Amino acid sequence: MPNPALIREKVRQAIALLNEKGIDAWLTFVRETEQTRDPVLDLILDLNVTWISAFILTAQGDRVAIVGRFDRENVAALEVWDPVIGYDESIRGPLVETLQRLNPREIAINYSENDPAADGLTHGMWCMLHRLLSGTPFVGRLISAEDLIGALRGRKTPLELEAIRRAVETTERLFAEIGAFLRPGRTEREIQAFVHERMRAYGVEPAWDPDYCPIVAVGPEAPAGHAMPGDRRVAPGTLVHVDLGIRQEGFCSDLQRVWYVLGEGETEPPPEVQRAFRAVREAIQAGFQALRPGVQGWEVDAAARRALTGQGYPEYLHALGHHIGRTVHDGSTILGPRWERYGQTPYGVVEAGNVFTLELGVRVPGYGYVGLEEDVRVTPHGAEWISHPQAELWVIRP
Amino acid sequence: MPNPALIREKVRQAIALLNEKGIDAWLTFVRETEQTRDPVLDLILDLNVTWISAFILTAQGDRVAIVGRFDRENVAALEVWDPVIGYDESIRGPLVETLQRLNPREIAINYSENDPAADGLTHGMWCMLHRLLSGTPFVGRLISAEDLIGALRGRKTPLELEAIRRAVETTERLFAEIGAFLRPGRTEREIQAFVHERMRAYGVEPAWDPDYCPIVAVGPEAPAGHAMPGDRRVAPGTLVHVDLGIRQEGFCSDLQRVWYVLGEGETEPPPEVQRAFRAVREAIQAGFQALRPGVQGWEVDAAARRALTGQGYPEYLHALGHHIGRTVHDGSTILGPRWERYGQTPYGVVEAGNVFTLELGVRVPGYGYVGLEEDVRVTPHGAEWISHPQAELWVIRP
Repeated sequence: MPNPALIREKVRQAIALLNEKGIDAWLTFVRETEQTRDPVLDLILDLNVTWISAFILTAQGDRVAIVGRFDRENVAALEVWDPVIGYDESIRGPLVETLQRLNPREIAINYSENDPAADGLTHGMWCMLHRLLSGTPFVGRLISAEDLIGALRGRKTPLELEAIRRAVETTERLFAEIGAFLRPGRTEREIQAFVHERMRAYGVEPAWDPDYCPIVAVGPEAPAGHAMPGDRRVAPGTLVHVDLGIRQEGFCSDLQRVWYVLGEGETEPPPEVQRAFRAVREAIQAGFQALRPGVQGWEVDAAARRALTGQGYPEYLHALGHHIGRTVHDGSTILGPRWERYGQTPYGVVEAGNVFTLELGVRVPGYGYVGLEEDVRVTPHGAEWISHPQAELWVIRP
Repeated sequence: MPNPALIREKVRQAIALLNEKGIDAWLTFVRETEQTRDPVLDLILDLNVTWISAFILTAQGDRVAIVGRFDRENVAALEVWDPVIGYDESIRGPLVETLQRLNPREIAINYSENDPAADGLTHGMWCMLHRLLSGTPFVGRLISAEDLIGALRGRKTPLELEAIRRAVETTERLFAEIGAFLRPGRTEREIQAFVHERMRAYGVEPAWDPDYCPIVAVGPEAPAGHAMPGDRRVAPGTLVHVDLGIRQEGFCSDLQRVWYVLGEGETEPPPEVQRAFRAVREAIQAGFQALRPGVQGWEVDAAARRALTGQGYPEYLHALGHHIGRTVHDGSTILGPRWERYGQTPYGVVEAGNVFTLELGVRVPGYGYVGLEEDVRVTPHGAEWISHPQAELWVIRP
């Protein structure tokens, strides 16, 4: 069910951002959103529509929705959009008339090479919009809404922040339960199934594809990355690593934790495992220290990357962090290296209200993967932990 | 979990279609598919990928995947794509080298004004593809894959057809249970909650947004279209209409059924309700008779529309039918009127192997909505029911 209070809060924020950024109007242009969903709809509608639909916000505060007749009722019931114009045969008439009435100097639309969360307009819909507006002045006024959407998604409102906190809390409870469940002989698949069962008990969902949420990596043979769990068994003298995120009340967490299973005669993890853990923890700390409004994403990544390689470990082959929110990769600025793969996203500027992950790890040959991931919030003065950072290796005594 | 047998069947079919349509290569170009998912991925991958990824099929049978390093393992495990090339920094090198090796005369990509299911390439990704290929001859060889994807999605394979049949069977069982549950005083919301509970018992999902799946319309005041259920109560002397689809093993059904609740002293539904039911049933029959390979979608709609208006009822304000399959609006040809809203889709040609809905209804003032929807399959010689068509009004005796 859509949460009208949340949507109203974001729509108000969007109108304020149009003024801040000096953009006259923002047009979200979609159809059949059950099938291909512009991620922006989560912020401004949280419903699906079937026919070609237009949602227009202006700096003056207009909130015009133009939707197919059969979608009109649900959109109007939100009490966010007004007027909600229903049409039967073609959207062209009401769309052009609305634009003529509002006469914006530029119209931001949802495409972006850099930010998947700001790139919900399909190319077919882009062509259609140009065709529908051809012969009007508006076709020459279309610009990218990348900047606007990045700020709108990235600056979490109070209601959004509270929901993320609650998701992180539940996730930390799940990690405690995983710790109690771990013992030699358990397979990756069993651990994953246990987590899914506990998620159902809490009434929450995996934050990403359940086939690899959680990602469970047992021992030194587990593959890196987004792999599905297999039949590898927890064994004494090796590591267990879990990457887990949930979606609760529509908002996501994303955390990684690591355990060491003591081997025969061991009373604590071996020095090379402890050394790796410290290096990972300190590299995340270095990222945390560098995170504050005004810095670019790559600078935060570089601080953590330098801390890790300074300890003689290899670079991690991913970004230090990403936004979380309604989705687990919540678009916009990446705290990542300036690699082509990340496009312009590492050059994005960190803003107060952002919520990021900080995550990295190293492989310890013969033992497994030591990786940590924390969730943090950017305040006007720096960063603040949302999760409780893992301070030491968690030890399983078989 | 992806079903590799199904994916292999569709990838084989895609290669055959490339040959049939004289297209050299087909490129699916995606990223962050948890967030914005090209609907084509359901057919050829059924997994999510995070980084910018390319999936290339050629008429010669090549099946090249280029994905981020961390997605490589899962894609390779499918044993559908070979080679699966993993990259770290940029997809440009492996993408351009692969195209140079294959050297296709044209490359179909996923955009379409007409078919949402063939329009999974976002405009930002379209711009990026043009940038990555700039300075190569391939940028001038890009064409729309609309036609290819329409045929691939539309011509159901044996495994797909069997899965749809099973989903329809379960849905018919659910309708029988709804009939037993209905009685005066039940609210729309209660009926929906009952159906959700039964879906969970069967381990199936709503085929569309659960907020309005099923759509339950009780009595003469219920709004038309995709409305959420409210507090209206089943009352003697009125109609109850339910539009319900489920997703089972990844495939959808979509059916509508209607009941009449006998009023005080009534032994059968009133004549105007019975007359409306017959007109609706016969109009669907007329569509069924007109449905065969080679006709255009609008011709089938026109046959049903004519049958209904010939009985003095107003035109229905939607299409007679749509494909069903992995999604409930499964793209491509629409059995609908030649209205601008439907673009070119009513001009699509019906093919053997297609599975369509046939649906329409009329409002009977003072009683409610009489609507039916059946699921049918196109054979080389005509059409064949998958559902068991509702032959008469179902009557509830309070």
